[in-house]
Amino acid sequence: MPDPTPSRLRRITRAESLRLLQGRAQVGRLGFISNGRPMILPVNYAASDDAILFCTGTGTKLSAVSAGVEVVFEVGENSPEYRAGWSVIVRGTAREITDPSRLDSLRWGSLRSWAVSSSEHWVEISIGEISGRIVVGD
Amino acid sequence: MPDPTPSRLRRITRAESLRLLQGRAQVGRLGFISNGRPMILPVNYAASDDAILFCTGTGTKLSAVSAGVEVVFEVGENSPEYRAGWSVIVRGTAREITDPSRLDSLRWGSLRSWAVSSSEHWVEISIGEISGRIVVGD
Repeated sequence: MPDPTPSRLRRITRAESLRLLQGRAQVGRLGFISNGRPMILPVNYAASDDAILFCTGTGTKLSAVSAGVEVVFEVGENSPEYRAGWSVIVRGTAREITDPSRLDSLRWGSLRSWAVSSSEHWVEISIGEISGRIVVGD
Repeated sequence: MPDPTPSRLRRITRAESLRLLQGRAQVGRLGFISNGRPMILPVNYAASDDAILFCTGTGTKLSAVSAGVEVVFEVGENSPEYRAGWSVIVRGTAREITDPSRLDSLRWGSLRSWAVSSSEHWVEISIGEISGRIVVGD
């Protein structure tokens, strides 16, 4: 049996997690419960210090997350050649944005879904807990 | 307001989804429910035609997924420069592998967690439903 390798996992601070969340990654994964089943949905997003914003079409499970339910959001990047990577996990409450003036400015903004028209639905996740970890490379 | 762009989202076949799942991506995201809350955990994995295998440490939420519960598993890659990507979603049942001879061969195998010792816990997800989508690039 190979020798057990020591853990290469490091927890990072809230500030560092927030910095990674707001960095160059443009796709994150929304985790939520729909009809009692776990779901993951990749979304294009943008993040401020206290909220994550994403836009989505009606064909998705929008109804499961629009009414103030608890969700989890994950973003990360990996470098297989170094067996390294990072991952940030956010817990918060998701709510669809319905205020017309806010929606109008969002539709003029820079956040775009790669998959659907940007004039579709917008959802905001309040950032409650945030935690991050990195895997130190070879 | 910008013109709505047509959807660039395409569904892909089960065979193509399986091919992507078994491809070069080495990190996937496990989605599950722990104490009634949605969870996402990035894991190193390998996939056959009917199962996904990953290894994990005891510090994770292993107990929530070891006893035959429904989970979701997502893997994908993105190319921000082309606003393109793909994502494959699998639904199945997770179960910890406890058979000693099978565990022994797994510990000698090529699948390794980047973060923890490979002699930790191994979990298998039966592949029930599998679906995939691509976002066609610019």
